[in-house]
Amino acid sequence: MSDCVFCAIVTGSAPARIVYSDEHVVAFLDIRPVRPGHTQVIPREHIPDLAGVSSDVGARLFDGARTVGAALRASSIAADGVNVMINDGRAAFQTVFHTHVHVVPRHTGDRITLAKGLVVRRDPEADATADAIREVIAPT
Amino acid sequence: MSDCVFCAIVTGSAPARIVYSDEHVVAFLDIRPVRPGHTQVIPREHIPDLAGVSSDVGARLFDGARTVGAALRASSIAADGVNVMINDGRAAFQTVFHTHVHVVPRHTGDRITLAKGLVVRRDPEADATADAIREVIAPT
Repeated sequence: MSDCVFCAIVTGSAPARIVYSDEHVVAFLDIRPVRPGHTQVIPREHIPDLAGVSSDVGARLFDGARTVGAALRASSIAADGVNVMINDGRAAFQTVFHTHVHVVPRHTGDRITLAKGLVVRRDPEADATADAIREVIAPT
Repeated sequence: MSDCVFCAIVTGSAPARIVYSDEHVVAFLDIRPVRPGHTQVIPREHIPDLAGVSSDVGARLFDGARTVGAALRASSIAADGVNVMINDGRAAFQTVFHTHVHVVPRHTGDRITLAKGLVVRRDPEADATADAIREVIAPT
């Protein structure tokens, strides 16, 4: 879709800190991360919502989320856990209508840091964060 | 796993309000729902965490979440959107170590109701809620 910012990231016409891509999905840092390392995994094709995600695309998104989650744990970000989330519909806080899977790194006892992150939503070291993930990411 | 409460739900030895099941997954109401209709989709096999979810199982979980999400919209719950979430690891608030996908119905402008639901976590009409979902659920 010509006015979709995520399609533009897929084609390379919009900038993004891509940490992983394969023939099915692209994963890149969220521009307003709730925590450093907050990543979006998206299908290459423009699918607005969950209802349009086939089993095949679902499997690829799942693979992408698992790959990113493992990298967030293995990298210097050293996540102890991850939240994987799809917000489907405006009522559920979906803001870009190209379906996407949030992968958010979590650390033991980070509840207050996370609450702060939900308000502030920035990572001044985003380039270094992207490098740290790319360094350890494994192909699915 | 013999002491896993979700395995016990799969085998039928623990009670649950099952709203959907097929040969791969079982979906049932969360016993402490953040909103009425909050459902868990789980694989039949005991997989503790995201790292153990294969592409195939991932596809089936995705199918299950999409099916439940569509039913939450189509049923009398009349969700305007859904949040689909996997909490992977204790740090990410995973409490049962049989991986599971939360599907939470959302309604436009429900932010305060949701915040309340995160604290209270109960549905006094859970039986009726389960019936409402079952009524409209479609096989994948």
